[in-house]
Amino acid sequence: MTDHSDKPNDANCDHRVECSVFQRGSELLGKRWTGVIIYMLLQKSYRFSELLGAINGISDRLLTERLRELEENGLVERRVIAESPVRVEYALTEAGRDAHDIISATYRWANRWFHLVSERE
Amino acid sequence: MTDHSDKPNDANCDHRVECSVFQRGSELLGKRWTGVIIYMLLQKSYRFSELLGAINGISDRLLTERLRELEENGLVERRVIAESPVRVEYALTEAGRDAHDIISATYRWANRWFHLVSERE
Repeated sequence: MTDHSDKPNDANCDHRVECSVFQRGSELLGKRWTGVIIYMLLQKSYRFSELLGAINGISDRLLTERLRELEENGLVERRVIAESPVRVEYALTEAGRDAHDIISATYRWANRWFHLVSERE
Repeated sequence: MTDHSDKPNDANCDHRVECSVFQRGSELLGKRWTGVIIYMLLQKSYRFSELLGAINGISDRLLTERLRELEENGLVERRVIAESPVRVEYALTEAGRDAHDIISATYRWANRWFHLVSERE
């Protein structure tokens, strides 16, 4: 596995593969609600209805759509547990769990810089 | 300054201020082109036309819009340099530079998980 840690300071983010990949990842994580969904799933797996109840303001339709996108991009897996009745849970894959550092860094950064503004609003 | 480093594992990202702030930051950084613009500005300040030329595929209108959003959110500043003719440059503020860890982590993460997929596509 290549270490790309120095790239943001020395690379030209033009039409190279590394950069289109960065852009894809960045836009996927930044979609409305996606960060919050991953944030929740970093704690534990959830049933759809639990997740819907735990995230304030998300609609049924949008949660469905976001979970599907995350599944398609390999960040979330849908686990069917053979109980009676069958239980379905959503959990992060290895790639999803690996986004932990990004979510943590974003959480800290946003709370450093936007905290007072949001309290005023 | 409070350290929120452990929050993504022990907090319920519900309707609390910390979480709405996280969501705001996450969605701001994840907007189309925004990550790439910050990525470029982490290297140096740019004139509008230079930035437009350096980012493959962005339109004049979208670059204007994104830079304005980043200015309004305090991540980018527009510097007017008193030369003849006057030179205008865009540079990251302290808050913008502080997003370095997020951009780096996203870059590494995306290249770990999406690299092969994108080469196939």
